[in-house]
Order: sequence, then structure tokens, then C-alpha cells
Amino acid sequence: MNISDIGLIGLAVMGENLALNFESKGFTVSVYNRLHSGRENRVDRFIRGRGAGKNFIPAYSVEELVSSLKRPRKVMLMVRAGQPVDDMIGEVLPCLQSGDVIIDGGNSDFRDTERRMKFVEKKGVLYVGTGISGGEIGALTGPSVMPGGSSAAWPLVKELLQSVAARLDDGTPCCQWIGPGGAGHYVKMVHNGIEYGDMQLIAESYYILKESWQLNNDEIADVFEAWDRGELNSYLIGITAEICRKKDTDGKYLLDKIVDVAGQKGTGKQTATAALEEGDPLTLITEAVHARFLSSIPEERKRAAEYYCPEAAVLDRVRIGSADLLCHALYASKLISYAQGFSLLRRASEHYGWSLDYGMLAKIWRKGCIIRSVFLEQITRAYDALSGLENLLFDDFFRSRILEALPAWRHVVAECLTNGIPIPCMASALTYFDGLRILYSSANLIQAQRDYFGAHTYERIDAPRGQFFHTDWNDTGGIASGVYNA
Amino acid sequence: MNISDIGLIGLAVMGENLALNFESKGFTVSVYNRLHSGRENRVDRFIRGRGAGKNFIPAYSVEELVSSLKRPRKVMLMVRAGQPVDDMIGEVLPCLQSGDVIIDGGNSDFRDTERRMKFVEKKGVLYVGTGISGGEIGALTGPSVMPGGSSAAWPLVKELLQSVAARLDDGTPCCQWIGPGGAGHYVKMVHNGIEYGDMQLIAESYYILKESWQLNNDEIADVFEAWDRGELNSYLIGITAEICRKKDTDGKYLLDKIVDVAGQKGTGKQTATAALEEGDPLTLITEAVHARFLSSIPEERKRAAEYYCPEAAVLDRVRIGSADLLCHALYASKLISYAQGFSLLRRASEHYGWSLDYGMLAKIWRKGCIIRSVFLEQITRAYDALSGLENLLFDDFFRSRILEALPAWRHVVAECLTNGIPIPCMASALTYFDGLRILYSSANLIQAQRDYFGAHTYERIDAPRGQFFHTDWNDTGGIASGVYNA
Repeated sequence: MNISDIGLIGLAVMGENLALNFESKGFTVSVYNRLHSGRENRVDRFIRGRGAGKNFIPAYSVEELVSSLKRPRKVMLMVRAGQPVDDMIGEVLPCLQSGDVIIDGGNSDFRDTERRMKFVEKKGVLYVGTGISGGEIGALTGPSVMPGGSSAAWPLVKELLQSVAARLDDGTPCCQWIGPGGAGHYVKMVHNGIEYGDMQLIAESYYILKESWQLNNDEIADVFEAWDRGELNSYLIGITAEICRKKDTDGKYLLDKIVDVAGQKGTGKQTATAALEEGDPLTLITEAVHARFLSSIPEERKRAAEYYCPEAAVLDRVRIGSADLLCHALYASKLISYAQGFSLLRRASEHYGWSLDYGMLAKIWRKGCIIRSVFLEQITRAYDALSGLENLLFDDFFRSRILEALPAWRHVVAECLTNGIPIPCMASALTYFDGLRILYSSANLIQAQRDYFGAHTYERIDAPRGQFFHTDWNDTGGIASGVYNA
Repeated sequence: MNISDIGLIGLAVMGENLALNFESKGFTVSVYNRLHSGRENRVDRFIRGRGAGKNFIPAYSVEELVSSLKRPRKVMLMVRAGQPVDDMIGEVLPCLQSGDVIIDGGNSDFRDTERRMKFVEKKGVLYVGTGISGGEIGALTGPSVMPGGSSAAWPLVKELLQSVAARLDDGTPCCQWIGPGGAGHYVKMVHNGIEYGDMQLIAESYYILKESWQLNNDEIADVFEAWDRGELNSYLIGITAEICRKKDTDGKYLLDKIVDVAGQKGTGKQTATAALEEGDPLTLITEAVHARFLSSIPEERKRAAEYYCPEAAVLDRVRIGSADLLCHALYASKLISYAQGFSLLRRASEHYGWSLDYGMLAKIWRKGCIIRSVFLEQITRAYDALSGLENLLFDDFFRSRILEALPAWRHVVAECLTNGIPIPCMASALTYFDGLRILYSSANLIQAQRDYFGAHTYERIDAPRGQFFHTDWNDTGGIASGVYNA
């Protein structure tokens, strides 16, 4: 046998579409899916269905799949993140030989990817953990691909992975080597976190247009379409306009019939947790994750609505801002979200020694993936101008853009809070910005309190950093005042 | 030997003070500290110093400590959370017999406590993981104590632990059995998270008084003292007033000389992470943790201040609100923080099967601990009135109090955001409140987006919950529209 270029395990939507994408680029693809008793075999269904007449080789066991591959073999897992990946590695690994490559294309936790790479490499096999963004359509037509793992694997999988990826107008594939270990999955995780933030910010804008402006969905779509023609041009803004216009079979807006309980598959939560681990103030994405949590307790929300309406409701609806002012607020908030996301990436890169190329990341997100937008070009430009940029807010263009947006941003956020429009992410973006830009914050009081009740010590503005002091604040004894060097 | 009532390992400030507290209640206490080569032995220093002439038995090895204890033996660890606890358990356990008790009084992660309890119980020894709050002074004079772990251990340690705890006016000790496994440390963790929230809310109020009102520290202290005489009466408000008044040796305010970089020991971060794990929208405490992170990057903040001042600074200082309005904003925000904290406890209790008694928790926090306040009485009353209360916001008293505060709260938050005063927690409290109380949120759009790009399906308001639909939003094919039952 040994005729297939790649073996793909897992024929759910993403796996099927990726297999079709590989095949369309001239590769022969072996496909395998675990057998489920009592259901139609997914391999047969695929081969007879969407894969009919194409260069696919069906496999009915892992052994069969592996034996059908050219060497060095590339086996790609498109199975559910978590235990299924470990299970499948356990099945595949004994069939492989030194120099073969296992590729995990799911949304695995980067720590799992680090662990699996070490485990697999011990057997002489190479490991790639790759983020793939673009949803089901992207997987079929060209996603953004973020591979990391065993560096020696990159030359072996580069052609394959780049061929299926989206391409920029200049032909650059939206697939570049991210870094060692779990770097690819980490970057994909943060990408998804940013996606949570983008979606929540759009949802907040939608809510303002709906509840404060009292627009109907077609009118809301008009606003999003106008924004999509400008600097906010992006996939998510575009589909939002389409979603607003979509009619149900009865001619009414479909969007209005959808239950307001947002699901999540965990990558937003993982991003928020990773930020806590790195000590990184990733407030906006975290608020977006919490907004989904809040949406997912509808009984409690119903109870709260009964308890607090009409008294807490704001009945005098004012039309907050103008389309221009809202656009500024949305743009500035989005900028903060990306500044925070890239700050987290910078801290993680330093922590794990990944040497991430931030401008390149923004570039491979430019097409194919869910957060693709014109905006990302400015991020690449900012890092190209200064690769050591600490925070995107320190780029001159973004600085002038923030300052331009600031009055509108402050106005929209303040009006929403006055009028009971929940905008957790826009508000969080602004409190982060003000928290970052003030020179002397209120954290001196927190340090004093900690020293008062816990003798945790503090530093002084008139002493070198790293010299710690304790005060007997209420003169009742306790441990003596003095200087501590921790 | 066999004469001591308890053996205490670890003579840092908390350990020393707790040992003195036990001794003052009539117990004989054996004390041991790991030897540090090249430093004075802490046991000797303690026995010759603060422990002189009292019923302490010095021990210079774990064996010696254990052999000095009455049976069943109680060995209390007051060592740094993490590996040191495991190390010490490893040393102590072989010296103990069936029915003896190990008590960990540090800020251990509740998962570690669950694991250690199982490990220790396998050897027939009982395990208690107890939260202790009150700082160094509390440890000496009566802390709030939150023990959980092996239920069989409670009768054995009850008298000891309750005797050192703070007491309510009616004599009730601020130490009650919290629940099995890691319940005690979980509750202590959330207590500390609430403490982060309280401290940040006070810091935000302080900042408003300082920067918007332009008060000096004595005038700020006057405001806090006035608040401390009313419904905001609490330990943290009280010490804040003292801190504001405190003068340095040169007669100037000490607070103004403290570097605004807030430290943390991890329990706030753990609380925020636990909320993400439980899918609980604990926004306020999380923002408080992030505010400390933000404070801890002074170089980036300095850069931001240079980059964004004076343009982003608000130079026309307005005096935001009045003392009454600020008091309402602070009270309402605090109420939200506690409502969120108790919601997290409820979810964790259901998840882990702890059957937590929320009214009792608020009661044992009433004295001794850092978050002690008059406010907690209302929480106990609310749970006494309705033990199954889903959310503190659904209590009638709190409802009327929130509605009373709402106009002021909205005004203060909006004015701060307009004027560049960073108030991440007050703002987050308000966006949470509005997010909870609106009947139909914007999460329908998020579900539509997720279905558009990822075929994640959605529920309909005109179909039963649990029935999932997918739409081919842009009519380009993809997977077929239809009904899914997940």
C-alpha cells in the first residue's frame, strides 16, 4: 500500500471538511473513524457520500490506516479534545515508526500538547499540536492553521498544512510554524479568547441598537454593514449583518426566536484561566466568558427580571450615541481586547520560551479564521515597526486612534451604565485603559491594608524597589516595625 | 511524656500567634519548626521570647513533638501552602497512630486538601483542612476558623479550635464545621476572594475621594469613619480610616509614600479560577484580582501614563457624587460581590456535595476575620429566612436596598467612567446586575454567530429547551439545516 499522503482520524464535520480540503489540493487521504456499534459506519458514509469518486482510502482500523501511508507517515487526529486524543495516541503510536508524525488538529489544552509531545517523542515519533480556526466552512475552503510541537516535524508537514490553509492576497499561506511544545495550541486558545471578546462586543453593540435605538433587525443590519465597509471590516461583523436579516419560514426575524443562552466549548474559559496563571490583566475576554456564564443561568435571570422590573428598568429610553460614536466605542474596546490578548501571549512566550512572532500571528489570522479582519493588518504593522512592542497601546497609530475614540467611548459607556444597558466588555475595556494610564493608582492603599492586617510589608516611593517595610499601623504592638528584605 | 494538648509545626507569625492563643486558653502546646542551618533556631527564640514562662514544650524533631502529645494526637501545620505541607505530612504521618489528627491551618488549595485527606485517611489518620482568617492579630486574639475534612475529626478538634476562635456577642464561636473534604479551605478561599473585592472597592472609593474630590488623607479618613458608623461598618473600612491618618516620621502621610504595586499570595487568583471551573459569573472578585495584576506592571503603567497624558487625562476635575451617593455605590457594589461569592459557594457545594450552610458561614465571618462587618448579619438573616435562596439579590431587604442605591450607583459609575477614574469593580458590579436583571439578553446573537460559523446549533424560544436547531445562515450549503437533539 503506502500510497496516502496523510491519514485522518475522526470524521465529524471538521474532520470531513479538512479531509476534503486536503484531497482537493492533490493529496491522497486515508480516513478512519472509530466504529460505533448500531450506527452507520462514518467511513462508509463519507466514502459513499461527500468523498465519492475522490482520492480517499477508507480504513477500518488504525493498523489499516497506518499501513496505507507513505513514510514518514503523517496521522492527523480530528477527535474531541481531552481523553479521546490520549486514547487515539495510545492506539496509533504502537503502529508508527521513528520519524513518523502525529498531528492533533483539535482544540487541545496546550499543557496536554506539551505532555503528549514529550510522551510521543520518547518513542521517536514527532508530534504537532495545531490550532485550526475557520469553523466548518474554513476547514473546507481554507482555515487559519497554527502548528506547534516538535520542531523537526515542521519540514515534514509544512507543505501539507500550508496547502490547505487560507492565503493572503500576496499568496502567503495562513499557516506558519508557531513555536515549540504547546505554542500552537496556546496561540489558538488565545485566538478563541479574542473571538469571545469580539463576539461579546458585537453583541453589546447589537443590544444598544436594539434596546436603546429601538431599531428593527434590518435597520441593525444596515448599521453593521456600514461598519463592515470601514475600519471594523471583519468576518464577525459581516455575518452579524447577515444574521440580523435572516428570516424564519414565517417571514419573521429568526434571530428573535433564538434562546439567549450562550454555549461554550471551553477555550474562552481556558484563556481566562491562563491569564490568571500568568498574572496578566486580561479583563475583557474574561468578562466575555462570564457574560456567557451569566446567560447560561436563565432561571436565575428570569427570577431577577421579576424581582427588579419595572423598578430597576430604565423606562425613558434614550438613543445612546450615534452610529459614529458607537463605532468609536466598539473600535476602542476591540483594540483594548487585542492589546490584552497580545500581552498575554507575550507573557506566555517569555514564560515558556516560545519566542512568538506577534506580527506573524496577526498575519496568519488575517484570512481563514473567525477573527479575520482588516484591523489585524494594523497589528502586524505595529509589530513590524517595533518587534519589542510591550503593549499595542504604545503604537503611535493605535495611540492616536484611541485618543480620537476616547470621548465617544467614554460617552457611550457612561450612558449605557446610566440607562441599564449591560455592556460588561466595553466598560471593562475602559476601566482597564484608565487603570493602565493613571500614574499613581490606589494600590498603595491595598498594600497598606495588607500590611496592616497581615504584615505583608510594602515598598516606598522614596526607597529602592525590593526593599520592604512594615508599619505597626495602630501602635498596638504586633510584630515590630522595620525594614524587611524579601 | 504525652502531656501536650496539641502540637504546632511552623513558627512564622501566624503559627506563633496561634500557639500563644491556644496556650492562653489553657492548653499545653508543643512547638516545632524546621531547623534552618545558619539561623537562630525559631523554637528556641520563641521559647525564650514570646513563649517564655508559658505552657509550651519545645520540640527539636517531629518524633519529639509527636511523642509529647496526648492521644488521640492533634498535630497542626502552620507552614507555607503547597509542597511544604506535603513534605511535613510525609514526616509526621509515620509517627502517628490510627485516630490521630493532622490539621492544616494554612491557605491550602482545596484540591490539595481533598487529596491529602484521602491519602492520610488510608493510613487510619484523620485530616482537617481549616481556613483561618484574621491576619496576625486575629490569630493571636481570636480568628474566624473554617474547618473541613474528615468528619470523624470534628469531635476531636472542636473544643481546641472553637476555644481559640473569635466569639459573637452571644458567645457563639466563629468556628463551626464547614463540611467534608476540601470544604473548609474552599470557603476560606472564597472568603479571601471576597476580601480582594472589598479591598478593591474601598480603594476605588478612596481614589474618587482623593482624585475627584481632591481631599487630603485626614478628610478621606473622616468620610470612611462616617461610613464606619453606619451600614458599611466593617474592619476594612475602619482600618482604612486609620491608614489614611497615619503619619510618617516626617509628619507627612505615610500612605502617600507607599508604592502602588499590590502583592498577592494566590487565594484571589484561586477564587477566580474556581469560578471559571464552576461556570460561575464571579465578575467583581475577578476584576479585583486583575486590578492587582495591573498594579504589578509599573513599568508598563509608567509608559502608558507618558503615552496617554495629558490628552487622555481628564483635567476638569468634577466632584463626583456626594458622600451619600458614594456610600450607596459602595454598598450596592459590595452587595453584588457577596451575592456573587455566595453564588459560587452554592455552585461548588452542589458540585462537591458539601451541603454548605450559608447563613452559618456569614455568621462565623461576623467576627475575627478580615471581612467582618455588620453587613454579614443581613446575609445570615436572609438565609435564615429562606435557606434555599438562589441569589442574595432575591432577598427582600437586599432588593429594596439595591433599588434605593441604584440611581446613585449608576450616577457614580457613569461619572467615574466619563472622568477617567478607574473603578473596575464598581463598574463590573453594575454590568453584572444589569446583565442578570434584563429578561432577554444579547446572547441570542452569540448563539446565532456560533451556529453560523461552527454549526454549534441553538435553541428556540418557541421549542422545548434541549431541542437544538441549525440553520444554513448564508444558504451556501455546509451541513444541512434541521433539528438536532444533543
